[in-house]
Amino acid sequence: MPDIKILTEGELRDLVPLDIDAVECVEQGFTTLAGGKVVMPPIMTLMVPDHNGEVCVKSAYVPGIDSFAVKMSPGFFDNPKLGLPSTSGLMVLFSSTTGVLEALLLDNGYLTDVRTAAAGAVAARHLAREDAARVCVIGAGVQARLQLKAMALVRGITSAVIWARDGAKAETACTDLRNELGMDATASIDPANAVALADIVVTTTPSDTPLIQSDWLQPGQLVIAMGSDQEHKVELDPGCLAKATLYVPDNQSQCALKGELRSAIKAGVFPADRQFTELGDITSCKAPGRQSGNDLIIADLTGTGVQDTAIATLARQRAEAAGLGATFTS
Amino acid sequence: MPDIKILTEGELRDLVPLDIDAVECVEQGFTTLAGGKVVMPPIMTLMVPDHNGEVCVKSAYVPGIDSFAVKMSPGFFDNPKLGLPSTSGLMVLFSSTTGVLEALLLDNGYLTDVRTAAAGAVAARHLAREDAARVCVIGAGVQARLQLKAMALVRGITSAVIWARDGAKAETACTDLRNELGMDATASIDPANAVALADIVVTTTPSDTPLIQSDWLQPGQLVIAMGSDQEHKVELDPGCLAKATLYVPDNQSQCALKGELRSAIKAGVFPADRQFTELGDITSCKAPGRQSGNDLIIADLTGTGVQDTAIATLARQRAEAAGLGATFTS
Repeated sequence: MPDIKILTEGELRDLVPLDIDAVECVEQGFTTLAGGKVVMPPIMTLMVPDHNGEVCVKSAYVPGIDSFAVKMSPGFFDNPKLGLPSTSGLMVLFSSTTGVLEALLLDNGYLTDVRTAAAGAVAARHLAREDAARVCVIGAGVQARLQLKAMALVRGITSAVIWARDGAKAETACTDLRNELGMDATASIDPANAVALADIVVTTTPSDTPLIQSDWLQPGQLVIAMGSDQEHKVELDPGCLAKATLYVPDNQSQCALKGELRSAIKAGVFPADRQFTELGDITSCKAPGRQSGNDLIIADLTGTGVQDTAIATLARQRAEAAGLGATFTS
Repeated sequence: MPDIKILTEGELRDLVPLDIDAVECVEQGFTTLAGGKVVMPPIMTLMVPDHNGEVCVKSAYVPGIDSFAVKMSPGFFDNPKLGLPSTSGLMVLFSSTTGVLEALLLDNGYLTDVRTAAAGAVAARHLAREDAARVCVIGAGVQARLQLKAMALVRGITSAVIWARDGAKAETACTDLRNELGMDATASIDPANAVALADIVVTTTPSDTPLIQSDWLQPGQLVIAMGSDQEHKVELDPGCLAKATLYVPDNQSQCALKGELRSAIKAGVFPADRQFTELGDITSCKAPGRQSGNDLIIADLTGTGVQDTAIATLARQRAEAAGLGATFTS
């Protein structure tokens, strides 16, 4: 069997920072997805109820990419009590031609963080107003920070407001962002006001009840809902989707099961058979994105296997070019 | 993060031979499955149509086992033209308590071969006549050999007959079995006769048309159909299931999608809502298996994630005890 490349989290952090290349890489994935030839099976979810855990498995075969990834993302939500992060995992790369194992990316979830943030930047690049400058982030975790960094790659972001249920965490995140990115970041205790004043709203929580009400939203805004990725999660009141000029899922069939679309269909806001323009239709110029400065647009990002295959392939290519990683034979 | 153990195919072959311990391990998995607390999501299948390939992902959380496996099995059927085996893959072990990555079992499909053969032995141990001595195997691949080896672990097998579409491969398999196991193995050119004379019939092919006709089957036989594990595969004419005294799926919901049960339901042999005794119900003594020497019993083995979690955990435990494997930190 050919050699297997093994890359550690540290190597992957060096090789694949969240930068405009990562955004381009993920954008190319969405564009290919819109071509109709990507094979992306439904997400596999293994529940581990005895330990408040779950594992999601995602994959996609993308014609034109030499490898495909199978990504495993455990989320064990009692881990912080043990001093461990809730999420971890790895990506495995196989040859698209032979199915032979090529690389093990032991990223502990890092590449998922990057490709998730990069999808936010893709949405902002194509759907936010050109002059969007003020971001409101709901949530204060890893993605709250990374989404702000991602937005700044594609728009001239001048200020950020963070609201989280735990106000102290929002304060800490703002301090970090000021120190790391030099960003004018402040914590809010009034989410309705914070949302109303923003050009871009990004929701990054695992909430199972709506956090954003429709009457908070304003013409011209882009709302990126990226927290909901399971059947029980929801961040936007379904009325938000009813109010939107344009609703854009990353992958409609997946959003209907695990995204904001699920709740909107359940609430009767949309009929179950309505077809929407997906993010890849817009990045590939098959369909228009924002058409006026007054459009209120909602992007529903559940996270797709095509992003995993795209970012894992980028990581491996860079590792080969840099001569990084251990080599293993089995 | 804690250390990750990496084991190669060679180490795993040494650690987990197909022996009675492997059979016991897999049997214990089925017994636990019957307890109703195992979580086993539907199989994820990624098709790679451009390269005649497919990847199956299986997993199961088994209460009482400290780890769970995610198993990836690529099958790329043009590989032999490139001098590569069609099947490969690996198993990944995670902590059941925290979801943290514990071990990478780079087995190239070896552990799948073992746990698949072991399931055949479990079926034979509980469903074949005590005096079963003559085995007929349909197919001449890796499982043809391993199933015979597995049968010999649980019954006093005195002779084997192999039929395959490619008669030369059947001859080669027989020569191998005579040399390796000292088994009285002969190739057949008359499958109807070979099946009719056997006590145990094992079908091990990827056929998509029935190979065994119902009028070949005799009272007292056990038929183990282990080839069909995808929506398009079938080895037994549906009339075989109609004729059986007892039909035993490894996992009914999976067999209804990917096993012999699928074709039988489609042909109207069984109503879709009929409930069957599963193999684990029999190994756990919740339900009777063979009740008379005249019973004609069919076991439908599609391969379950619980077998993967069981065998992967055994491999890791033995590797730890033997101090084998490389250690990696990420």
